Formats: sequence, C-alpha cells, structure tokens
Amino acid sequence: MRAARFHDQKDIRIEDIERPTAGPDDVLIDVAWCGLCGTDIHEYQEGPIFIPPKGSPHPITGEEAPITLGHEFSGTVAEVGENVTNLKAGQNVVVEPYVIYKEYWDTENYHLTPDQNFIGLAGGGGGLAEQIAVDKHWVHPIPDSISLDEAALIEPLAVAYHAVERSEAKAGDVALVGGAGPIGLLTAAVLKAKGVTTIISELSKKRIETANETGVADHVFNPQEVDVVEEVVKVTDGKGADLGFEATSVDVVLNTLFAAVRKAGVIVNVSIWGHKPEADLATMVTKEQDLRGTIGYYNSHEPSIELVSSGKVDLKPFITHKIALDDLVDKGFDILINHNDTAVKILVSPSGKGLED
Amino acid sequence: MRAARFHDQKDIRIEDIERPTAGPDDVLIDVAWCGLCGTDIHEYQEGPIFIPPKGSPHPITGEEAPITLGHEFSGTVAEVGENVTNLKAGQNVVVEPYVIYKEYWDTENYHLTPDQNFIGLAGGGGGLAEQIAVDKHWVHPIPDSISLDEAALIEPLAVAYHAVERSEAKAGDVALVGGAGPIGLLTAAVLKAKGVTTIISELSKKRIETANETGVADHVFNPQEVDVVEEVVKVTDGKGADLGFEATSVDVVLNTLFAAVRKAGVIVNVSIWGHKPEADLATMVTKEQDLRGTIGYYNSHEPSIELVSSGKVDLKPFITHKIALDDLVDKGFDILINHNDTAVKILVSPSGKGLED
Ligand SMILES: NC(=O)c1ccc[n+]([C@@H]2O[C@H](COP(=O)([O-])OP(=O)(O)OC[C@H]3O[C@@H](n4cnc5c(N)ncnc54)[C@H](O)[C@@H]3O)[C@@H](O)[C@H]2O)c1
Ligand SMILES: NC(=O)c1ccc[n+]([C@@H]2O[C@H](COP(=O)([O-])OP(=O)(O)OC[C@H]3O[C@@H](n4cnc5c(N)ncnc54)[C@H](O)[C@@H]3O)[C@@H](O)[C@H]2O)c1
Ligand SMILES: [Zn+2]
Ligand SMILES: [Zn+2]
Repeated sequence: MRAARFHDQKDIRIEDIERPTAGPDDVLIDVAWCGLCGTDIHEYQEGPIFIPPKGSPHPITGEEAPITLGHEFSGTVAEVGENVTNLKAGQNVVVEPYVIYKEYWDTENYHLTPDQNFIGLAGGGGGLAEQIAVDKHWVHPIPDSISLDEAALIEPLAVAYHAVERSEAKAGDVALVGGAGPIGLLTAAVLKAKGVTTIISELSKKRIETANETGVADHVFNPQEVDVVEEVVKVTDGKGADLGFEATSVDVVLNTLFAAVRKAGVIVNVSIWGHKPEADLATMVTKEQDLRGTIGYYNSHEPSIELVSSGKVDLKPFITHKIALDDLVDKGFDILINHNDTAVKILVSPSGKGLED
Repeated sequence: MRAARFHDQKDIRIEDIERPTAGPDDVLIDVAWCGLCGTDIHEYQEGPIFIPPKGSPHPITGEEAPITLGHEFSGTVAEVGENVTNLKAGQNVVVEPYVIYKEYWDTENYHLTPDQNFIGLAGGGGGLAEQIAVDKHWVHPIPDSISLDEAALIEPLAVAYHAVERSEAKAGDVALVGGAGPIGLLTAAVLKAKGVTTIISELSKKRIETANETGVADHVFNPQEVDVVEEVVKVTDGKGADLGFEATSVDVVLNTLFAAVRKAGVIVNVSIWGHKPEADLATMVTKEQDLRGTIGYYNSHEPSIELVSSGKVDLKPFITHKIALDDLVDKGFDILINHNDTAVKILVSPSGKGLED
C-alpha cells in the first residue's frame, strides 16, 4: 500500500509498503482522511523530534525511522481481530493516537506516563497510509452524523477540549485566546460550546476573517491595530478576562494574557515553545494567576465526538484543503510552510477517494 | 513618639511624630517588635514602589510620603475604641497589615481587590513606631505561648502559609524550595508542619547552615556543587518532586523547578520579579505542570498563629538580630543590603524595650 514515510529531515517519501495485519486485539482501518499539523512540519523541517531516529528505536514500539506519518485521521473498519467485540467492519472510527506502555492504558493521567509518544510519529503505522492496524483500546467509533472528513479533526479538537478542561472554564466566563491558528480556533470553538464568551487576538487578516466567519469568536482584535488589553478591559466592564489561552508561541502574546486576564484568573499554555519566553511573571504573581500547561488529551476523544455529533461544534468550516498523498510535500507542506494563514486544516486522502479531480 | 518615616529613596528618617489615637473601631497598640524585609529594602533603594509618593496620596488612606514604615509587627493593646469588644488592654496581638476598601473586607479574595496595599507602606501608621492604631478587623490576638518577638514573624509566616495553601500540598508530598532566604525557610517550615518532605536549593553557605540547623529541610543542595535536578530525582526514586516553590527571583532556579518537579506537579511562584525571567515553559507544558502565583495572605494569620502556638513551627531560630530604631539604617538595612545571608529576620524595638545593651 501507499504510505508517507519520514526517512530524515526534509526527506519524506511516498512509498509502497506492506499492508498491516490485524492482531487478535487490533482493528484494521481503511484510512479516509488524515490532517496535517504543525508537529508534522516541525518533523519535516527540524526533525526528527518525536520520531525515533535510525539506530534509536522507540522503547515502546521498537520502531525507528523510516516511520509512517499521520496522527489526525479517520477511517472505516476493514477487519477486526478475534478479541474485538465492540467494533465491526464498515463502522466509521477515529483513533486516539497514543503510544503508551500497556500497563498504563487505564491509569490516571495515562497521557503523562514514561516514554509516551504518538502513533504516526513513534511507529505503529500512521494515518498517511491507506491502512493502519490499531489496538481496539485506542479506537473510538463515530456516529453517522459525523462525516469522515470532519472526523479527521477530532484529534486536534481533543487537544482543544483538554486545554479547555485544564482551564476549568464554565458558562458565563470570558476567555481571551491568543492566536487563531487551528489550535486557537478549535479552542475558541470548544469554549463557545461551553457557553464562554470568546475574544481572539490574531495578527493575520486571513485568520481574523476565519475567526469571524466561523463564529467561534465573539470579538476579534488585531494587536497591530488596537491595544488588546484595553479592548478586553472594555468588553469585560473593567474586570479583565477570566481565562486566557496561549496558542501562538510568541512572548508578547503570553504577556498580553497576563495583563488582560483578571486577578485569580487562569491562563492555559497550549503552545509548544522552541525558546524560553521572557514571561511577565511579576504580573502573574501580583495578580495571583495560574499558568497551566496542557499536553495532548486525556479521555478527551469521547466528549469531543459528542460536541460534534450534538451540533455544538461545527468542524466543516475548518477544513480548507483536500489533497492527494502524492501532493503531501509539494502542496500540503508547502501551504503550511509558506502560506500558513490561508489554511486551517489540510486533509489528505491516502487512497485518493473523496478528491474531486 | 519616635517613628521611622520614608521621605524618599535613600531618605528614611527617625523622627518625632504625634501619637495616634484610637477611633471607635480601633485598637491602639504599643509595638513590641517589627521585622525588616526585602520590601522595605526595595523601598529604600529603589522606591517609592508601594509607598504613595509626595503629591500622589493613596486612594484608600489619603496619605502620601512621608509615611511610617513597618508591616511585620507584634505588640500589646494599650487602649481600645468604644466599639471594640473582643480585645482589651494588655492583650498581645499581631496585625494583618492590609490597606483595603472597607466594602471588600469580608469578601472572597479580599487580598486581590482594587488599590489593595499595606499598612506600613501606604499609610495607616507602621510597626517602626512606638504605637499604631489599627481597625479591630485586622488585629489578631496571640496566646501567651507565643512570645512577642516570635509574633513579629507571623506576617512573613502568613506569606509562606498562603504560598503553601496555593500549592495544595498534602502530607507525604515532596517539595523542592528554591532559596533559603526568610521566605524560602518559612515556606519549608510550613511544609514540614504539614508532613511534606522538604528539599532546599541554596547557594549561600551560611543559609545552607541555617536551613540545616533549623531542621526545616530534609535535604539541602548547593547548585554550585551538585546537579539539583539529579539529586531530587534520587531522593524521589526517579519520580521528581510533587511541588516546587520559587523564592529567589533567579531564572535558573525557576527552570530547575520545572525540571525537578514531576509531570502534573505544581510550582508556586512566591518571588517578586524585577525582570521578565526566561522561563522554560516548554518543559512546563510537556509535563502539564501548574505555575501558580501567590501574593500576600488571605485568612492566613489565624492558621499561622495556630502553627506556632501548637509547636508545629518554631519561629525562634529565624530571629537572628535585634536592634534599636535609631540603628534602622546603619545596622538593619546595612546587614540586609551588604551581609544579607547572615540574617534571617532582623527585629527592631521601636521603644528600645527588650534590647540587652
Ligand atoms: N499542547 C498541545 O498538546 C498541542 C497540540 C498541538 C499543537 N500545539 C501547539 O499549539 C500552538 C498553536 O498551534 P497552531 O497549529 O494553531 O499554530 P499556528 O502557527 O498555525 O497558529 C499561531 C497563530 O498565532 C498568530 N500570531 C502570531 N503572532 C501573534 C501576535 N503577536 N498576536 C496575535 N496572534 C499572533 C499567527 O498569526 C497564527 O495564526 C503551536 O505552538 C503548537 O505547537 C500544542
Ligand atoms: N509573594 C509574596 O507575597 C511575597 C511576600 C514577601 C516576599 N516575597 C518575595 O519572595 C522572594 C524571597 O524573599 P526573601 O526575603 O526570602 O529573599 P532573599 O533574597 O533573602 O532570599 C533569596 C535566596 O535565594 C538564594 N539564591 C540566589 N540564587 C540562587 C540559586 N541560583 N540557587 C539557589 N538559591 C539561590 C539566595 O542566596 C538567597 O538566600 C523575594 O522575591 C521577595 O520579594 C514575596
Ligand atoms: Zn497534530
Ligand atoms: Zn515583609
């Protein structure tokens, strides 16, 4: 079958590999759609980061580069192993793409256990291939009301869901989200679904448009045009936002959050930092705020699926491109690297099905 | 009466001022001892910071420089106003030195309300004077089992108490405290009283001695001699500390805490930053830690008094110097500025009582 495999930095190849087979606990999935994200780009441009390099196999999977990519995917069950009773061929599913030692699968905070990594980065196949076999534990069925292209966005939605959970947001709160990339937009979508008033700060005109058009933001401000802190103070009648979400990896945005969030407020840091930001902790301390990290998801796929199936979150407007596997680097990565703000989510069809032309 | 008054940066004068009188809700206190702290030094060297400068009266007190200093003090009730029924002359007391709008006194998080400031900085008299009149709301009686010199340390102990409360520490936890200044030492003392295993990181040989001799630390490490993160990993059998407390205002210490605290652990930032630290938030995010600010205290004086009266915290060893009011700058401030690590708490006797020579 065809698969996109990471050999090394700037060396991703579309090649023919053997089809996976389903072990007794596995679900063999025909991949429908696989989303691309910043993590994939980081691996391509600066990697291997999560990916185990040649000669250093991952302790859980035993695999090393070349590794099949893709961790944001949906598909249809092709076949199930003999111990799989809750799923059957023909059913639509998404995968919670964790690579975790089996002894931790049912423990508290399984997402924070040693050597934890991801399917599509550390081995175990990937969504950028025609098929993948995954242990039933990580396979979540999706109802017919969710289309397979939308379903490919359940994984980043789960990231946003978990970030919002970390904030302890409640209906009536006001949240400032720094950045309207895929993560910022989906975070705003989850917040709105919870009855939170959302304010987005974003520089790019195109993404400001997206934030407005998708309706996930009640207010969108451009820090090049207005003083975002002042605007938040106005929107909240002088009180400041209850919550902040950092989804840019830009120091000044983090510090805007400390300034715009009220005393005793909570700021969730979703962004992954490639440098040590100069953080305005003096403000954080004197306002007695909490800054909370969030990484991945923890029992977040089911509630995320529920948010979509109940109609509270509409994922359709976030799908901006659909491409073929062969176009992965030339179209997919190129857009994300050079025209980043024209895309929210780019979906790849490994089989070619579902592509118009 | 004699009082130490801040006129301007590097201009603190010991002068004769009028004695305060007790209004109907006030308690007139003969000050026994008043502690000096970093905040006083900051005002002296770089101020006015908290202190309202001449021409800019504080909105709550209406006062401006010159201002009587001193916010860490104990004393004996000299006289009470007609509405004061719970306290009487001769009783030993400490003051929770808040300047807060009266409408907020009984509200949640009264310590985070607008224009909040401190007695001894923003007006309302100060502990570096023979007497002070304070509204009964902020006066806490102390039992005979607590001597008046120890009682002057209740205020910084309340800072430590609140910091520990912010961490949600519980018995059996392991905490790494960065810095063995007064705040780090008292934080470790509160932690030990709660059944937490304490590890202190400190550079100064003298303060390492203090940490060991006072018994507040189960382990003390010098980052110039050992790798503190490695030592914490050893002490915790590979798990990392459950909690971290930053009490140095030094970037590298903050980042040591992110590294040494376990996944999903909590780091409380007690230090006040004069610069924006380069914070290793990548580690904070991928370990899904919480970084929590803490400022002042909130209903912390009563439990702090209880910690001392029950014998769980011994404040005596933290009193390293006792001086006269006239020696405030030449002895008190000089030690804190030039020989900082020889002192934990310097107490001033405004009346001169209790001084041996
Ligand atoms: N914690 C997790 O589990 C997790 C999971 C996935 C992604 N992430 C991280 O989340 C972050 C966001 O991901 P993304 O894919 O949305 O990234 P992105 O780069 O697509 O989006 C960032 C957005 O921030 C905007 N921005 C930049 N500077 C700004 C400024 N000064 N003011 C306002 N906006 C500004 C950019 O215009 C851009 O739209 C990344 O750091 C990513 O690595 C974290
Ligand atoms: N949040 C609050 O309400 C509150 C209240 C009072 C004080 N504070 C702040 O708490 C902090 C500590 O106060 P303090 O009076 O104890 O200060 P301090 O300066 O006396 O103590 C700091 C200690 O850190 C040590 N240190 C410096 N670099 C170090 C390193 N690399 N590794 C290990 N130790 C190192 C120093 O040797 C010193 O002993 C200050 O920033 C102060 O402003 C906060
Ligand atoms: Zn992703
Ligand atoms: Zn103080």
